[in-house]
Amino acid sequence: MSVYTDKDPNTLQEEYQKLSETYAAYQAQHLALNMARGKPGSEQLNISNEMMSVLAPDFDYRTSDCPDVRNYGNLEGIDEARQLFADLLGVERKNVFVGGNSSLNMMFDTIACLMEQGCSGEKPWNQQGRIKFLCPAPGYDRHFGVTNYFGIEMIPVPMTKDGPDMDMVERLVREDAAVKGIWCVPKYSNPQGITYSDETVRRFAALKPAAKDFRIMWDNAYIIHDLTATPDKLLNIFDEVKKTGNEDMVFEFCSTSKITFPGAGVAAMAASDANIALVRKRYNFQTIGYDKINMLRHVRYFRNLDGLLSHMQKHRAVLEPRFEMVIDKLNQELGGLGIAAWTKPNGGYFVSIDVAEGCAKRVVTLCKEAGVVLTGAGATYPYGKDPKDSNIRLAPTYPPMEELKKAMDVFCVCVKLAVLEKALAQ
Amino acid sequence: MSVYTDKDPNTLQEEYQKLSETYAAYQAQHLALNMARGKPGSEQLNISNEMMSVLAPDFDYRTSDCPDVRNYGNLEGIDEARQLFADLLGVERKNVFVGGNSSLNMMFDTIACLMEQGCSGEKPWNQQGRIKFLCPAPGYDRHFGVTNYFGIEMIPVPMTKDGPDMDMVERLVREDAAVKGIWCVPKYSNPQGITYSDETVRRFAALKPAAKDFRIMWDNAYIIHDLTATPDKLLNIFDEVKKTGNEDMVFEFCSTSKITFPGAGVAAMAASDANIALVRKRYNFQTIGYDKINMLRHVRYFRNLDGLLSHMQKHRAVLEPRFEMVIDKLNQELGGLGIAAWTKPNGGYFVSIDVAEGCAKRVVTLCKEAGVVLTGAGATYPYGKDPKDSNIRLAPTYPPMEELKKAMDVFCVCVKLAVLEKALAQ
Repeated sequence: MSVYTDKDPNTLQEEYQKLSETYAAYQAQHLALNMARGKPGSEQLNISNEMMSVLAPDFDYRTSDCPDVRNYGNLEGIDEARQLFADLLGVERKNVFVGGNSSLNMMFDTIACLMEQGCSGEKPWNQQGRIKFLCPAPGYDRHFGVTNYFGIEMIPVPMTKDGPDMDMVERLVREDAAVKGIWCVPKYSNPQGITYSDETVRRFAALKPAAKDFRIMWDNAYIIHDLTATPDKLLNIFDEVKKTGNEDMVFEFCSTSKITFPGAGVAAMAASDANIALVRKRYNFQTIGYDKINMLRHVRYFRNLDGLLSHMQKHRAVLEPRFEMVIDKLNQELGGLGIAAWTKPNGGYFVSIDVAEGCAKRVVTLCKEAGVVLTGAGATYPYGKDPKDSNIRLAPTYPPMEELKKAMDVFCVCVKLAVLEKALAQ
Repeated sequence: MSVYTDKDPNTLQEEYQKLSETYAAYQAQHLALNMARGKPGSEQLNISNEMMSVLAPDFDYRTSDCPDVRNYGNLEGIDEARQLFADLLGVERKNVFVGGNSSLNMMFDTIACLMEQGCSGEKPWNQQGRIKFLCPAPGYDRHFGVTNYFGIEMIPVPMTKDGPDMDMVERLVREDAAVKGIWCVPKYSNPQGITYSDETVRRFAALKPAAKDFRIMWDNAYIIHDLTATPDKLLNIFDEVKKTGNEDMVFEFCSTSKITFPGAGVAAMAASDANIALVRKRYNFQTIGYDKINMLRHVRYFRNLDGLLSHMQKHRAVLEPRFEMVIDKLNQELGGLGIAAWTKPNGGYFVSIDVAEGCAKRVVTLCKEAGVVLTGAGATYPYGKDPKDSNIRLAPTYPPMEELKKAMDVFCVCVKLAVLEKALAQ
C-alpha cells in the first residue's frame, strides 16, 4: 500500500503538487537527454578502435579460400569469417553465410527472398494472399517494421518469463496455414532481456506448423552480450531441430554491430543446407559479394572465438555499472509503490518497464517535455499498439553516465506524475 | 579477300591443318588463363592500399552531419560522401544516396522497391502482370540476371556506335505500357566500350513512355574509367531531364569498386527528390544505415573530386598498355581477314569482338579446351541468347600481362579455327 495505490484524494493531490514542482524544476534545466535507441556509447566504440589499423597497406590479403580479399568473389564470405561465426553459433561452416554490415538487412533480404521465391516447395509468399507472422510482444520494433513493409499481418504473442507463450504459438502455427513465421530474439530479448528457457527452445524445435513453409526468424542479436557474472544460457536451436527433423524451419542471425562498430560490423546468418541454397539463389543476383576486407579486418583482430568472448568483457565493464544504476534508481524511486514493474536483465541492451495501465504514452510525453527522449510508447508492439499502454523501453547504453542518471531521475518522476494524473482524473 | 573468306577447300584445309598444330601445341602447355570477368588486377588493387590506414585508431570520427561515424545512423550516408558523389555525378547532394559496397546491390534493391511499391502513383510492378524491360545488347549480364530474377520479360535492343537504337527505344516505350524500364551503361558500355552520343542522351531525356512508371536504370559504372588521353564525354542525364521535365524517369548508379577495391568500395545512386523519397521508404525498413566508416575512409583518402580523378590516372597507367596490347594482337592476327570486328574503347573494362556468325560459342569452347577461360558466349545477351552467336567479351584487366599475351594468342588461333571448321563443314 503506497500513496499511489491509496485512493485518498487529498494525499494524492498533495503528492501530485510536490512532484509537479520537482518536474517544473527539471523543465527549467532545459535538458537534452536520450534513452531511446540501443546504441553503444563512445566508450564502447573506443574498445574496438585498434581494429581500424589491423590491415596495414602492406598486408597479405590472401586467405585459404580467396586469392585476394580486395577483389570480387566469395559470395558466402571468406572461410575464416564463416568459421568464426560457425564457432559462435555452434553450427558447421557450410551452414553460415557472412554478409554486409547489417543483420537487419539480412533478415529483410531473407523475408524478401521468401516473398519472391517461397520455400519448401510452396508458392512464393507474395502469391499466397494474406499471410501472417507471429510477433512476440513486447519485441523489436524493426522486426515489426520489416513485416509491415511486406504487408504481412502481425499477430502479437504475449511474452512470459520463459519466452513467448508457447501454448499460443503451438496452437496458432498448427491451426492456421497462413501463419508463415515468427520473430524471436531468444537471448536477452529486446526489450525485456528474457532468455528463452530450454523447454521453450525445445518446443520451438518441435513445432508442427500447418504451413510447410513456416519459418522461425531467430535473431540472436545479443548472443554474447552479457552484463553480469551470471550470464544466461540459451540452447542451440540447430542442435534441437536436428533431433526433430525441422532443420529447414530456422534462420538464425547475428552480427558484430554491438561487438565492434554499429554500421561497420559484419553480419551473418546460419541455416540448413536447403535454406542456404535458397537465399544464395537470390544473393547470386543481388551482389557479387560483401565486404571481405572488413571480414578479414574482423577475423585478424579477434583471431578466434576466445578473442571475441574476451572482447565482450570490455563491453560488460562499461555497461554493467550503467544497468546497475538504472535498476538501483528504479528500486529506490519506484520500488514497492505498485505502479511499475521491471526486470533486471543479465544481458542485452534494454530495461523494460511496465507502468500502470494506460500510463505509458503519458510518461513518454512528460519525459519528452522535460527534455528526455524515450522510445515511443507502443513501439515495442506490432503496429505500434500496446493494448495496455503500459510498456516502456529504456536504452541505458548511449548517454554518458551522468546524463543517464539525470534522465532516470526525470523518468521516475514522470512515471509517478502520470499515475497520479490518472488517479486524480478518476 | 583472305584465306578465310576465300572458299577454296584446299586452301582452307591447309590453313586448318596448320592452325590445328598450333592449337595442339597450346593445349600441350596445360595453360590456366582467364579473361572472363572485369576484375582489376593486383597492380590496380595495390594503388589504393594506403586507404587501409587512413583511419588510425585515434582518428576523429565526427563529421559535420554525424556525431560519430562509428555509430548507427545517417541512412543516406554521411554528407561528405554524398557531396563527393554529387560532384562526380554533377547533381545536388540532396539527390545522392550513398549505400553499401555494391552498386549492383543498389540496382537490385531499386528494382525490388519498384516491384513492391511501384512509383508515379501506379500499382507496384509485381501487381501489374507481365512487365518488360528493354535490354540494349550486347550488355551487362548481371543486369539481365536481376531482370530475370524478378520475372521481368527482357526485350533486346541493338546497340549502335552512338548507344542503343533510339528509334526502337522510342517506339517501344511509346507503344507498350508494359515496358517499365531500360538498362543503360551510358559510358564505356559493357562490353563494347561505347559512350552514348549527346543526341542519344537527349533522346533518352525526351522519351514519352506510355507507362507513367517507366524508369531508366543509368548504370554509370565507368564514369571516370578512361583508358586513353582522349577520353569520351557523356552528357549529364540529369541536366537533360530537367529540361524535359522527366526528372523522375532516371536512377543513376556508380561505385568505387573499380576505383578503390571491388567488394570493399562505396556505391551511390542519384535520383530526383521523389525517387530518393521512394527508395528511402524501403531502405528505412531494410537497414539502419550503411558502412559510414568505409565512407569516411574514402572521403578522407580522396579529399575531393580532383583527388578521385588523379587517382584514376594511376589505373589508366596500368590498364592502357594492356588494352593496347589486346588491340594490337587483334589487328596483327585477325585484322583484314573479314572474320571478326572489334572496337578500340577509350575506357571501361572490356574489348568486345564480333566473330563470324555462328562461331562465338565454338571459339569459347576451343579457348576453354586450351586452358583459356572467357565469358560464356551469349552472356552479353538477355537470356544468354546471342541471336547471331557472334559476340565475345574479352576482359583484359585481371591476368598478369604475360598471361594476357598468351591468352590473346590462343584466342586469335581459336577464332580462326572456329571460322575454318564452319567453312569446311559447309
